[in-house]
Amino acid sequence: MATYSLAALADYTGSTLQGDGALCFASVAAIDQASVNDLSYVRGGKYRHYLETSTAGALILPPELATNYAGSCLVNTDPYLAYAKIVALLYPVPRPATGIHPSAVIAADVVLGEGVSVGAHAVIEAGAVLDAGAMIGAGCVIGENCHVGAQTQLHPRVTLAYQTQVGQRCIIHSGAVLGADGFGFAPDRGMWYKIPQVGNVVVGDDVEIGANTTIDRAALGSTRIGNGVKLDNLIQIGHNTQIGDYTAIAACTAVAGSVQIGKHCQIAGMCAIAGHLSIADRVIVTGTSMVSHSITEAGVYSSGTSVTENAVWRKNAARFNQLDKLARRVVALEKQLADLHNKDLD
Amino acid sequence: MATYSLAALADYTGSTLQGDGALCFASVAAIDQASVNDLSYVRGGKYRHYLETSTAGALILPPELATNYAGSCLVNTDPYLAYAKIVALLYPVPRPATGIHPSAVIAADVVLGEGVSVGAHAVIEAGAVLDAGAMIGAGCVIGENCHVGAQTQLHPRVTLAYQTQVGQRCIIHSGAVLGADGFGFAPDRGMWYKIPQVGNVVVGDDVEIGANTTIDRAALGSTRIGNGVKLDNLIQIGHNTQIGDYTAIAACTAVAGSVQIGKHCQIAGMCAIAGHLSIADRVIVTGTSMVSHSITEAGVYSSGTSVTENAVWRKNAARFNQLDKLARRVVALEKQLADLHNKDLD
Amino acid sequence: MATYSLAALADYTGSTLQGDGALCFASVAAIDQASVNDLSYVRGGKYRHYLETSTAGALILPPELATNYAGSCLVNTDPYLAYAKIVALLYPVPRPATGIHPSAVIAADVVLGEGVSVGAHAVIEAGAVLDAGAMIGAGCVIGENCHVGAQTQLHPRVTLAYQTQVGQRCIIHSGAVLGADGFGFAPDRGMWYKIPQVGNVVVGDDVEIGANTTIDRAALGSTRIGNGVKLDNLIQIGHNTQIGDYTAIAACTAVAGSVQIGKHCQIAGMCAIAGHLSIADRVIVTGTSMVSHSITEAGVYSSGTSVTENAVWRKNAARFNQLDKLARRVVALEKQLADLHNKDLD
Repeated sequence: MATYSLAALADYTGSTLQGDGALCFASVAAIDQASVNDLSYVRGGKYRHYLETSTAGALILPPELATNYAGSCLVNTDPYLAYAKIVALLYPVPRPATGIHPSAVIAADVVLGEGVSVGAHAVIEAGAVLDAGAMIGAGCVIGENCHVGAQTQLHPRVTLAYQTQVGQRCIIHSGAVLGADGFGFAPDRGMWYKIPQVGNVVVGDDVEIGANTTIDRAALGSTRIGNGVKLDNLIQIGHNTQIGDYTAIAACTAVAGSVQIGKHCQIAGMCAIAGHLSIADRVIVTGTSMVSHSITEAGVYSSGTSVTENAVWRKNAARFNQLDKLARRVVALEKQLADLHNKDLD
Repeated sequence: MATYSLAALADYTGSTLQGDGALCFASVAAIDQASVNDLSYVRGGKYRHYLETSTAGALILPPELATNYAGSCLVNTDPYLAYAKIVALLYPVPRPATGIHPSAVIAADVVLGEGVSVGAHAVIEAGAVLDAGAMIGAGCVIGENCHVGAQTQLHPRVTLAYQTQVGQRCIIHSGAVLGADGFGFAPDRGMWYKIPQVGNVVVGDDVEIGANTTIDRAALGSTRIGNGVKLDNLIQIGHNTQIGDYTAIAACTAVAGSVQIGKHCQIAGMCAIAGHLSIADRVIVTGTSMVSHSITEAGVYSSGTSVTENAVWRKNAARFNQLDKLARRVVALEKQLADLHNKDLD
Repeated sequence: MATYSLAALADYTGSTLQGDGALCFASVAAIDQASVNDLSYVRGGKYRHYLETSTAGALILPPELATNYAGSCLVNTDPYLAYAKIVALLYPVPRPATGIHPSAVIAADVVLGEGVSVGAHAVIEAGAVLDAGAMIGAGCVIGENCHVGAQTQLHPRVTLAYQTQVGQRCIIHSGAVLGADGFGFAPDRGMWYKIPQVGNVVVGDDVEIGANTTIDRAALGSTRIGNGVKLDNLIQIGHNTQIGDYTAIAACTAVAGSVQIGKHCQIAGMCAIAGHLSIADRVIVTGTSMVSHSITEAGVYSSGTSVTENAVWRKNAARFNQLDKLARRVVALEKQLADLHNKDLD
């Protein structure tokens, strides 16, 4: 296990060292669990009181907290980012061995870049191109004419349907399915006529896609996931939808088809975004929201209601379904009172 | 790439030709993106204004729009369906090569119909029957005694648990799981006693099932998906639920156990349907609705609230949890005003 | 097919026999579908009226219903549990053949307990330990240094990422992914810096995990699923979350990261639980609820609204977004009326 001095970690993260630079660390821990052997961090807010009680060996602190801190620390305007960089340094994630497992089934014309790894029982179909350093996990299926960019990692059991394009340095977690048919049918005498989904999925660079997330291929053209986008688990992205660069979406959110989501948006978990909408850049949507109209300005948007005791909720939920009537009764009361007032003035 | 004259496309779709039947097309495009080489369509509504500005080479139009249209067009009472048929003609979807991949593991007694294809690393267990033309994608697992109907396509990495029956001409997308155990437990001294799930899943003909969708096997009997049903991605269908013919359900909707859904229903995305309910034929449920009681009549049903600015929402959501009290205050006001009015009359 | 006398079934379930103990049964059925050859059960409530019309050969009944029942029955204070035990007896679920399929890829140092089964095309990586009787389905991928407890069954196509630990007698359904990276990123100049997720997932004994459910590995430490926990399909469990013993969660629910859920809780389907919350023991949350604050006491909690006709809903939903204003208007009315009343008193 690699060990680094606090002085070296200050250098590595661009922090100012305060205290004993010779202290050495091989591990980090949360502020409420850290022992004297661990490095930890405090950003402020409700964790601020831990400064007095924490037994961490050293902390990463913002300047305003470091001033009055007697222990050793790294002073950084962004303690969380510095912490993330140190975690990456101390805890290298295991990488698959390079090379092609003999049980993998790879079509004759597949182009394999330098240092590519392909896991056991993976299947790579005709015309696919894997750029240098691409890592294909065990049991993945890469369809015809797919392109996987350099250093991109597919964890085990990912499916890329034919013609899917994935950029460089992406991470796709197990069970994700890119390029299944979009949900498109025309009504035909009470039945459904399938509209062929003949577009594809195009994923930018530095994208992460969570476990069992699904991104449908476009009906025509491309469903596009911008650079640096982060998608959590069990997300649905409908056909022809476009997601702008650096947008992050949390688990279980459903984005219908032909939606345009801007750049730098943050969509929380279990939101539903209806089809054919546009969402501006830098929009934040809180959890479980239903977005049924376009959002044209940056800001924070919400819908839904939060849990209360069931007995209270039952009454309120019943009233909700009479809300328009209630509002009309208030209007009637206002009118009656105004009439009374007018009569008094007479 | 195949090319067809406008006259041939009129024949193929049962449309009336208006204009130059010799125009040839190999591609379609959306009305706002179509070039002179593309065929496009307009159904009416908000896309109607594109008739004046579109650069499409020809259009498919309903009679009421064709009347005043100067360019070449196909006149059809259902432009969207005609368009779908032309897409299917111009863009044939790749089909897997027939034959059994040598890496597939197929039990000795499996019955393989004529022209069946089985992809690399697929597993087909004892007693399974694949009818003529069935296509089993790479990495699929077909359990014991399953039946896959003629021309049905399983995309890569589908799981059919034992005894699952799938009809003809179905399409099942990657990651779908049919026949996992239903969620059935009896409380037993603070713990859960598993109720064996010994029924199965029966899927009709012409059904499409989306990526990573799950359909649980019945506790006893069958979970049934009717003919022509279309299920999008990441849908959950609980044990013993019955879905009527030609019903369509959009992504991320959860249907609990023992639900009866009628024919020709349309359930939008991220709805939740509670257990043991009945839903009549031709019911439409809009997105994110919670169905907690049976629906006995055709119609459109909804619940939920839509996003607003977070600051506005916070106040409204807080008021929601006092809604019954608010309604009682309105009742009190009504009574006071009635008393005042009665006093005036005295 | 095994057949048991009613007397034997009384013994087996600890029930009191009433009527003809020599009646023999090989099958059970729901009370509204049971024939004379089937055993069925009634717990009371809305199914009570079936006592008079059911054609079942015998019933399992609670004492209060058995008193007036003329047919043969098993009298048990918990008919549902007795029924579950009889289903388990009459309908043994097929178990995979023991032994290692020759197509499985198993690293040289994997420890295989006695009677382990490994299905076709499964992949088991270095350092993994499978205890006695563990069953690994076809196409599963077990990462480095995973541990699978005795008698635990992984259905086909399950993924355990490296270092995942699963207890004894668990059941994990197809498509489930345990140990994918948690969703953790630090903002970095408008982009996202990935926080390495270097913890793991630890699952207790007697846990069941549904199809396509995802449980993320901890950032540091462990995401923990307690003993006897039951998770349905398509559930998301975020990194570092802890779920107490014997808690059950229904399909499509999303639990964010660092949540503490107590013991013996019941969370219904499609709920969303926000990050860093605590939920007490024995909390019940009804379907589609949004839990955005901690719950400190046992009880039943709810949120959301239920479907109505779309035309009614539209008006009510519009009023919801003016609810705070409506409440303020009621306050104003109350003040005006009080003023009127005071004036009258003058």
